[in-house]
Amino acid sequence: MFDPASLKYDANGLIPAIAQDHLTGEVLMMAWMNNESIQKTLETSRVTYWSRSRSSFWIKGETSGHIQKLIEMRVDCDRDCLLLLVDQAGPACHTNRRSCFYTALREGDEVIIMEPQNPSI
Amino acid sequence: MFDPASLKYDANGLIPAIAQDHLTGEVLMMAWMNNESIQKTLETSRVTYWSRSRSSFWIKGETSGHIQKLIEMRVDCDRDCLLLLVDQAGPACHTNRRSCFYTALREGDEVIIMEPQNPSI
Repeated sequence: MFDPASLKYDANGLIPAIAQDHLTGEVLMMAWMNNESIQKTLETSRVTYWSRSRSSFWIKGETSGHIQKLIEMRVDCDRDCLLLLVDQAGPACHTNRRSCFYTALREGDEVIIMEPQNPSI
Repeated sequence: MFDPASLKYDANGLIPAIAQDHLTGEVLMMAWMNNESIQKTLETSRVTYWSRSRSSFWIKGETSGHIQKLIEMRVDCDRDCLLLLVDQAGPACHTNRRSCFYTALREGDEVIIMEPQNPSI
């Protein structure tokens, strides 16, 4: 049986978690979890981060409706990073873009490569 | 012109960087960069992390030959995480697996889902 205590957390008790679309492979966002948010995520299949700015649990999509359903959780070799394969409803980013990684460096300049989705989608 | 100083670093001057295979979308690893390693990466197109354990630059593959060629660097909405699209030679993981994320939680247990590659590959 997997125990979240087997993971390596930073000095604040946090571990980075990368959310990836389980079908397309698109990397959607990176946020932080602690032992308890990992347990909540595994129990509910609703991805639950720890908000560092609000110091509280952050059930992804609880207010926006853009929930992340956990399909599979993976652990890296150092046990200090998680990869979450998710089913993402709508945009993952608070800017209404599908992914938080929406700027890219091209020929030395940072350019926007993704537009916000239509709110009705 | 992009300036790495426009990014948000943590208290140690570091920012997490996710390496993703630019062709398959596979997430290969997550490691850390600082301002100078980002500049080196952009100048050389050889992905260069900052090793927290050794407190030194870590040119990925310098000893193993498993280099990461940078195809594109992306920045997230909070400017506190990077996504690196890379051309990965051989395995990304020090265990000789293609990806560092080689265990998964399935039915409550953590199982190995990826075997080491043949060293000759």
